[in-house]
Amino acid sequence: MEANNLIEKIKSRKSIRNFIYKKIDNDTIGAILECGRWAPSGRNSQPWKVCIVSHPTVKRLIAEQSKYGGIIESAYLNFVVFLDLERGYDRTKDILAMGAFIQNMLLAVHAKGLGGVWIGEILKNKEKVSEIFKLSPEKFELMGVITVGLIDEALEKKEERERRALEEFIDWF
Amino acid sequence: MEANNLIEKIKSRKSIRNFIYKKIDNDTIGAILECGRWAPSGRNSQPWKVCIVSHPTVKRLIAEQSKYGGIIESAYLNFVVFLDLERGYDRTKDILAMGAFIQNMLLAVHAKGLGGVWIGEILKNKEKVSEIFKLSPEKFELMGVITVGLIDEALEKKEERERRALEEFIDWF
Repeated sequence: MEANNLIEKIKSRKSIRNFIYKKIDNDTIGAILECGRWAPSGRNSQPWKVCIVSHPTVKRLIAEQSKYGGIIESAYLNFVVFLDLERGYDRTKDILAMGAFIQNMLLAVHAKGLGGVWIGEILKNKEKVSEIFKLSPEKFELMGVITVGLIDEALEKKEERERRALEEFIDWF
Repeated sequence: MEANNLIEKIKSRKSIRNFIYKKIDNDTIGAILECGRWAPSGRNSQPWKVCIVSHPTVKRLIAEQSKYGGIIESAYLNFVVFLDLERGYDRTKDILAMGAFIQNMLLAVHAKGLGGVWIGEILKNKEKVSEIFKLSPEKFELMGVITVGLIDEALEKKEERERRALEEFIDWF
């Protein structure tokens, strides 16, 4: 059933950190971005900006700002996602919208049969990452790097993913 | 194609504000929550808490805290979503995870053929909403209310949704 297809995709998505280096075509990249584009945001402010990075030299500069630089460099593509602070209107709501935006892109990556991981650790160097792209840190705040590539199934561990049981975080009224 | 199914669902989801009052069964509610449950979060902290509200008296109390109270009351179901501050570790990353969590639930609502709207305006009264559920505002911070119901197609306007063009927010490197 159609509903179950989407729900299974949501449930089966997981972080992928091992990639085979192979070009991802522009149509695929466009489809992933298009999913981000349709994310909801408060007052429809759409406060996002994305730098799409495939050039090895630029990847190297980003990689230097994270302890997961090896993953960033080994993937064909990195989406460097910023909050456009001038488009935003309420910090909590803007960041929630950015989370929805990133999740839509991660789901699209998974739907396309590719793998990706959302790197948040790099936020410790967010100003330096803005500067790589000549973006003012006062105008564009780094929200995360989404690393995307062809999955290296041989290296990817088949480990169980863990989540809290539903009962642990819900209450009925 | 399977990928296009998910991508079409992501692109076709929209806010629904007119509902037919009809019971939503527990299996459907469980499937929506299950999609939230598999959202990614930094350090896998899973900092979410959800109060599931279908009782009219409780809905009324929530409705009183929002100018969109009419929507809240007319929907069969409301998911009142909180950030569990003690499980979180970094405010920006925690809120991003909450955005991914909410978006997964909204997509599941859409996949199930139901409609919903993410109400953020109620955050102006977030402490009062926490108190309705006897939750300490120091421990649980309201992130949004997701109102869910059967779509009233006759009342729902077929208006065009608007998003910025891709070219407006992307750069290639």
